[in-house]
Amino acid sequence: MAGGAKARRLPRAVREGQMLDAAVRCFARHGYQTASMDEIAELAGVSKPLVYLYLGSKEELFTACIRREAGALLGAVAAGVGGSEVPPDERLWAGLLAFFTYAAEHPDSWVVLSRQARTHGEPFAGEAARMRDEIVGFVAGLIGEAAGEAGGGITPRDVDALAQALVGSAESLADWADETPGVTAREAAATLMNFAWAGLGNLMKSERWSPR
Amino acid sequence: MAGGAKARRLPRAVREGQMLDAAVRCFARHGYQTASMDEIAELAGVSKPLVYLYLGSKEELFTACIRREAGALLGAVAAGVGGSEVPPDERLWAGLLAFFTYAAEHPDSWVVLSRQARTHGEPFAGEAARMRDEIVGFVAGLIGEAAGEAGGGITPRDVDALAQALVGSAESLADWADETPGVTAREAAATLMNFAWAGLGNLMKSERWSPR
Repeated sequence: MAGGAKARRLPRAVREGQMLDAAVRCFARHGYQTASMDEIAELAGVSKPLVYLYLGSKEELFTACIRREAGALLGAVAAGVGGSEVPPDERLWAGLLAFFTYAAEHPDSWVVLSRQARTHGEPFAGEAARMRDEIVGFVAGLIGEAAGEAGGGITPRDVDALAQALVGSAESLADWADETPGVTAREAAATLMNFAWAGLGNLMKSERWSPR
Repeated sequence: MAGGAKARRLPRAVREGQMLDAAVRCFARHGYQTASMDEIAELAGVSKPLVYLYLGSKEELFTACIRREAGALLGAVAAGVGGSEVPPDERLWAGLLAFFTYAAEHPDSWVVLSRQARTHGEPFAGEAARMRDEIVGFVAGLIGEAAGEAGGGITPRDVDALAQALVGSAESLADWADETPGVTAREAAATLMNFAWAGLGNLMKSERWSPR
């Protein structure tokens, strides 16, 4: 049996983490269809039956990857944003920087979430949509909080729509940053801050643009 | 043979248009995998061999749908935007209104472009990506023009990134509008105008936000 004494001594949680790391890498690079359980097991340094035993079928493994990576992304952004004692523009800036830094430092994770999870039908697309809804909800919470403090008369529906707009622009820019040589996380975050905040900032003061 | 005298008298271009209309509807409602050539032919009121003869395989038909719908969307937005004698904020407003109106009035077309085309692998994802690049390029042209006139020192890379952000937020909001009862095209366009223009408007005046 492959692995040896050292491998067998690792706790199950650590082993599962290694399998998921290997799976994210394979799914990101080869796509869901082409990635093989053989390669995932080999990359994780375990036998294929152990992958099936711990994490189930390829479908279950892919679902577990989507969940873990989405949780890690949301966790990174939430940690970046900080508490409500920080002014809203600084919180947005910190959250955007955390988001683009996560995407830049975990390109395989970003590819799994933004592309692979959405392009292989159900149940993955539904899983990805639920995770995205969670992120939109988190962003809506931040915008709603800032809007409430500013008292600019922004409705809950406005807040939802603005959160959708912000998440959509962040996704699009993260793909662009991933594909464009030399774009740093800081540059992408600064661009989106310029695009989004000056907009949100004026909205918070009830300075709305309207057709002439 | 189905169809009869009236059906046979239609010019090929009209017939193909009817087949594409039927195909867009079936692909949007059932997805690429499940949509059947039988149903598409029936909905178009022609025989299945005629669909194959005029538009080729199901794969070719789906590709033709993506191209036609993307062309129609881009055409609608370009027509909405108007000439460069119109002020940039009015052009953006008109373009956004045209975009959300197109998505609201052609929900099957929007579903094919935003979801179906991206979620069934190649060659469709590549086709969808090329079409999206074209739209981003068009938007970048508008932003670049406005930025050039305003002289705010926005680099070509800034312009590309801002176009990506704007297209991403528009896609996200169009999906949200499609799924949220009672959202009109005008409401979605106004929300994005508030989000995006006030931001872009400040950028044009070189009033950039920076971390404190």
